[in-house]
Amino acid sequence: MNDILSTQLFSVYALVLIAEALKTLFLGTATSVSRLGPMQFLNQEDADWLGGEAVSADHPTPARLMRAHRNSLENLLPFFIVSSLYVLSNANALAGIIYFITFFVARLMHTYAYLSKKPMLRRNTYSFAWLATILTGVHATFVIASRAFF
Amino acid sequence: MNDILSTQLFSVYALVLIAEALKTLFLGTATSVSRLGPMQFLNQEDADWLGGEAVSADHPTPARLMRAHRNSLENLLPFFIVSSLYVLSNANALAGIIYFITFFVARLMHTYAYLSKKPMLRRNTYSFAWLATILTGVHATFVIASRAFF
Amino acid sequence: MNDILSTQLFSVYALVLIAEALKTLFLGTATSVSRLGPMQFLNQEDADWLGGEAVSADHPTPARLMRAHRNSLENLLPFFIVSSLYVLSNANALAGIIYFITFFVARLMHTYAYLSKKPMLRRNTYSFAWLATILTGVHATFVIASRAFF
Repeated sequence: MNDILSTQLFSVYALVLIAEALKTLFLGTATSVSRLGPMQFLNQEDADWLGGEAVSADHPTPARLMRAHRNSLENLLPFFIVSSLYVLSNANALAGIIYFITFFVARLMHTYAYLSKKPMLRRNTYSFAWLATILTGVHATFVIASRAFF
Repeated sequence: MNDILSTQLFSVYALVLIAEALKTLFLGTATSVSRLGPMQFLNQEDADWLGGEAVSADHPTPARLMRAHRNSLENLLPFFIVSSLYVLSNANALAGIIYFITFFVARLMHTYAYLSKKPMLRRNTYSFAWLATILTGVHATFVIASRAFF
Repeated sequence: MNDILSTQLFSVYALVLIAEALKTLFLGTATSVSRLGPMQFLNQEDADWLGGEAVSADHPTPARLMRAHRNSLENLLPFFIVSSLYVLSNANALAGIIYFITFFVARLMHTYAYLSKKPMLRRNTYSFAWLATILTGVHATFVIASRAFF
């Protein structure tokens, strides 16, 4: 394991995941903060506290941030799982670094595309990160399964 | 750690998690793709781009897929945490394999039950996976706590 | 790695994460169960099965539980990532224990504040857990980056 922790693959893995985790956290915070513009809140007690209105559906700005946030979470969890197991499976380092950096760049651009309303860029960056996740998972599966069964 | 990585428990853990992660990823993709049927989108720019309608609530088909997807994510994260710590805590391998395979089979059947609208099967498979998650967590807690404090 | 697994930091990390994971799991379950009060369900088949009504938006009680649940998941995933990498990066144990226990206490109180409709306590406990997550991530980034590049 100490071998794994001192590789370049582990450094890329760790830094990509921390950056994505913090970006996702900030998107959640931005959703809450953006409710202070329209002063519309999902919780009655917040409306009472801050002198706004309680609504059952968000204003478009927090609703968009929330969708971008949710999309980040939905894609980060599968990637976190497959990339962790990729690193632990001791699979090829260069391929891993390519998958992880592809995921990272694509997900950063996806957030930009979501917030700036560029649907084609959003679809393309989503697809690149999606493909990187699947390749990471399938590659790790082959390495782990071949070691377990053969 | 190299001992842990070469166990049967680790192989089962890794393969179950990768499969569940990819299934969850595909459910998210299916939600997006299913919006192309009714041509109703949550983002105005998607409606403009693809020539559909922007709506604030999804059509029933993507809404159902999204609920199945959300349910997968909600249950996958706790299971990922407790199963990882179970493997790291070096707890009993046979019990772990039983918990993990129970979770996996139940969650696959849960997705089937959600998408084919079978509420009793959905409740039962949800409950089996839920119980497997709790058993994994409680078992790992006992092993880790007894080693830490006694 | 066996060194890491036998530290006090690892025990705190493991127990905090298991407790938060199970709390999050129970919040999801409570959301479903609370739909049996108003007998309103998001799935038509559940309404048919249990003799209730199918609605597109939840009754306030399950809606509030679902928001508390979603907030737990949204904050648990980034924390899980940064705390795992913090432990693996072999960063300072005392700082880690302080971050992790701060996160844990703040998140437990956040759930209480959400369910008991106390918005200021909710905002403050959210902020403490948020800060603990960011400190954990930034601290781990410095340790990993300094080892990787210098």
